[in-house]
Amino acid sequence: MASYSIGIDFGTLSGRALLIDVETGEELASSVYEYPHGVMDRELPCGKKLPQDWALQHPQDYLDVLFHVVPAVLKESGVSPESVIGVGTDFTACTLLPVKSDGTPLCFLKEYQEEPHAYGKLWKHHGAQGQAHRLTAAAKVRGERWLSNYGGKISSEWALPKIWQVLEEAPQLYEAADQFLEAADWIVWQLTGKKTRNACSAGYKALWNKETGYPSREFFAGLDPRLAHVVEEKLGTEIAPLGQRAGGITPEMAKLTGLKAGTAVAVGNVDAHVCVPAAGIDGPAKMLAILGTSTCHMMLASDEKQVPGMCGVVEDGILPGYFGYEAGQSCVGDLFAWFIENCLPPSYFEEAKQANQTIHAYLREKVQGQKPGESGLLALDWWNGNRSILVDADLTGMLLGMTLQTKPEEIYRALIEATAYGTRVLVENYREHGLPVKEFFASGGISWKDPMTMQIYADVLNMPVKIVGTLQGPAYGSALFGAVAAGREKGGFDHIFSAARKLGKVKDTLYRPIPENAAVYDVLYRDYCLLHDYFGRGPNDVMKRLKALRQQQLGRPS
Amino acid sequence: MASYSIGIDFGTLSGRALLIDVETGEELASSVYEYPHGVMDRELPCGKKLPQDWALQHPQDYLDVLFHVVPAVLKESGVSPESVIGVGTDFTACTLLPVKSDGTPLCFLKEYQEEPHAYGKLWKHHGAQGQAHRLTAAAKVRGERWLSNYGGKISSEWALPKIWQVLEEAPQLYEAADQFLEAADWIVWQLTGKKTRNACSAGYKALWNKETGYPSREFFAGLDPRLAHVVEEKLGTEIAPLGQRAGGITPEMAKLTGLKAGTAVAVGNVDAHVCVPAAGIDGPAKMLAILGTSTCHMMLASDEKQVPGMCGVVEDGILPGYFGYEAGQSCVGDLFAWFIENCLPPSYFEEAKQANQTIHAYLREKVQGQKPGESGLLALDWWNGNRSILVDADLTGMLLGMTLQTKPEEIYRALIEATAYGTRVLVENYREHGLPVKEFFASGGISWKDPMTMQIYADVLNMPVKIVGTLQGPAYGSALFGAVAAGREKGGFDHIFSAARKLGKVKDTLYRPIPENAAVYDVLYRDYCLLHDYFGRGPNDVMKRLKALRQQQLGRPS
Repeated sequence: MASYSIGIDFGTLSGRALLIDVETGEELASSVYEYPHGVMDRELPCGKKLPQDWALQHPQDYLDVLFHVVPAVLKESGVSPESVIGVGTDFTACTLLPVKSDGTPLCFLKEYQEEPHAYGKLWKHHGAQGQAHRLTAAAKVRGERWLSNYGGKISSEWALPKIWQVLEEAPQLYEAADQFLEAADWIVWQLTGKKTRNACSAGYKALWNKETGYPSREFFAGLDPRLAHVVEEKLGTEIAPLGQRAGGITPEMAKLTGLKAGTAVAVGNVDAHVCVPAAGIDGPAKMLAILGTSTCHMMLASDEKQVPGMCGVVEDGILPGYFGYEAGQSCVGDLFAWFIENCLPPSYFEEAKQANQTIHAYLREKVQGQKPGESGLLALDWWNGNRSILVDADLTGMLLGMTLQTKPEEIYRALIEATAYGTRVLVENYREHGLPVKEFFASGGISWKDPMTMQIYADVLNMPVKIVGTLQGPAYGSALFGAVAAGREKGGFDHIFSAARKLGKVKDTLYRPIPENAAVYDVLYRDYCLLHDYFGRGPNDVMKRLKALRQQQLGRPS
Repeated sequence: MASYSIGIDFGTLSGRALLIDVETGEELASSVYEYPHGVMDRELPCGKKLPQDWALQHPQDYLDVLFHVVPAVLKESGVSPESVIGVGTDFTACTLLPVKSDGTPLCFLKEYQEEPHAYGKLWKHHGAQGQAHRLTAAAKVRGERWLSNYGGKISSEWALPKIWQVLEEAPQLYEAADQFLEAADWIVWQLTGKKTRNACSAGYKALWNKETGYPSREFFAGLDPRLAHVVEEKLGTEIAPLGQRAGGITPEMAKLTGLKAGTAVAVGNVDAHVCVPAAGIDGPAKMLAILGTSTCHMMLASDEKQVPGMCGVVEDGILPGYFGYEAGQSCVGDLFAWFIENCLPPSYFEEAKQANQTIHAYLREKVQGQKPGESGLLALDWWNGNRSILVDADLTGMLLGMTLQTKPEEIYRALIEATAYGTRVLVENYREHGLPVKEFFASGGISWKDPMTMQIYADVLNMPVKIVGTLQGPAYGSALFGAVAAGREKGGFDHIFSAARKLGKVKDTLYRPIPENAAVYDVLYRDYCLLHDYFGRGPNDVMKRLKALRQQQLGRPS
């Protein structure tokens, strides 16, 4: 009898289920459901206004996803619930919920519905920037060794700054919350009735380390005496390894989703990280770049190295037995979208429409015949700051080389090239710190839809670029983890490596570097690096001065 | 009886006449005529293709202007030809014609009509770049003192490179030309039947100096033995001071224009330079900026100073008795036009149309309420290289500080601010070299139509900005010179200073610096200078490397 697994990917605006054949990897059905509340960054459902930089979510939306997309893929595929051996899930992270001891989110309780801090803090909630700064500073002062595992800087997007923000701004909510839980773990709790905490979210987002655990009680007490016991009181120390079976679908959830009660559910996971087995990556030195609005770079290695500017290194954080490295570029698809929205003349849209092309395809057609360097343009891709390797949100974009002959499509291509140079900086940085990068995989919509960009990446990196063979990398990866949670006896796998090797997908299309292009990009890359260091490493802090002046003129705290 | 004067301004694409009342300065009539041949930068009238960087004109067009616009202003104003006491003209420069000894342009002769070198070389003809480089180099090697009067660099736009190009590329045409003449002087010859050479064109464009004359025979012989006698053979050494009467309208020209034979005609002049008396400027330390596609900066001083990066200092070159200083920014209105054409989304044009606004007015409305520094943007305004003070055509544009929140109108404003910083660099450069700049006048369409830009200039310069009171600065200035050529006895003036003081026009609108804006712009200007020097003075020659690579990739000689 054929076996199937369902992967459920909870994104920023919607959740998606994908049902796959565990024997062949065939994607039989998928379904998307948009969160009814979306991202709450202006007001609560009751109309209460939110401060700037906030981004909340309503956990009811996550349940609604389950109730819509799981029945939909069962129906669309015609697969019987008995044949579905496992369910895997992945989530944005750190997306953090304050819950009661029975798992009820505080925002489900009537008395807290007008309390902003009772809702889920989405990964891109930036309201805890102050706490993040103080947390980093305190770790530096105390010489905390774990800090170097996170590139030397704690992000405002992570769990401890977000928890600390609750404590400082709404101590009664902090008190009322019996637990702070990743949404990734909360959804698994809802599916199985069992609370788990996954090693990936804990490691990358909550400063947990397989060897040394969380930061010490002294460290937390030093931040605020009320935080001394935050780990025991609010987090819990039992961390579940990835691929483990968290439990089975509860009878109640079986009714609501159409799944069979008892179906294996994997422990929670993070969206970018589950893409690694989906790409068939099973060992070190293979970098996976997930190109979306921003880009995440995942890589396995056998050693723990302190690499400046990476987002994090977590043992078993991606696949068991390896140190998982994460790095990122904060602005990729977002940059191209900004350009399209703000910088293209009317005639371009008209001509693209007449040619029945997307605007991206139209721009590509205009500029893909140019040689590297032909435009005379060079950009720094920091429109949303620099995540890796400078870890500096206050850096901004730069474009140079314009003349009165410069055309919009040339700027478009220069922006694409800039993101490729940014990727090469990451790759070379890993290499310089003892982590070879021998293969390069790209996934995400851009990798499928935009051959010019992929060729530019191959030329700039001077490495072949492989394209991951599914457009639903996270959901597909989650389905693999679901099949691992089911186990080999049930028709699944006994290990994520077996799943990755058998079902990991790479397309036949391979982008090989074109030597003459690579040679020119080598030259241009040197100039990119010169500007990268000049503006990013202190010789000229003009970007920060301009940003500080902007804040001052807008009357905002800098 | 009332007296009138006609100024005729020969621009790049058209010629314009303006008839004014010499008593009141009232502008009674104006008329424009577009050159039928326009700028010939692709082919000759016979269809023969032109090399890249060429820009030719057909002198018949200049005559056609006279025959159209002079009768038109006489007719429109109803002024009788007897009441027109003088005619003044101004021209683009260096716009150079090869002519026979009787003034016939070579291109009028049938045997030369397919010879590109037989036509007029427009000011922006850049085909003599090689000759200009070699000319500058030779002057440096010989330590020629006059070189410092031109900021240390000879432009490819000037007379000697253009003449040398003819000699090298078409020696038979060089031989056939009895004279090379500025179009400014040729048109006066046509009007009066008398050949003159005006001091302004000779001084700024042909390396002539009131004290020392032209460069020496040895210098020219060193370039090419055939050039040893270029001055005597092709240029002539008699130079007429500005404001002088060149002659009277010939009977033949009287018939063709409707003017009275014998009407006084002033010696030729250059378009930017005649604007100075039009602004009422009659002495030192008053800078006039003529804002157009590019900006020219005119100033008088009592002393000759060597100011690095200026375009030229010429004794009596603007007004008699003073050293006239010229500097320039190569890209001002052109930069804004490039931005409008290439970088604005469709919705902006639609909304401007709905609001019945020009696109410039629409953009201003969106961004004029912002405070300095609020956008976080900073630009270098070098889209067309940097004329002053870096004198480097290989520099290119730069924009910095972009985020995903950056809006097009903010970039627009940043470009305007960049041109203001560029002007301030000129002003401070003069000051540092002993030439105070105490008053600032702006003229040209931008100065009338764009109050935001003028306020930004006032704030950036931290000086009041006065607006010249005529939109036809060159034609108005030429009319003043026409009245001077007529003389006081005929109802005109005995000196251009009397004309400037009586009829020079400044609007009532004065843009005063706003102290809090000036303070912020002071800070931003420091960062502009840091980037100006970093990219413009050698620490990072990335712009030149990119431009050279571009030429290489395009397969063009660098």
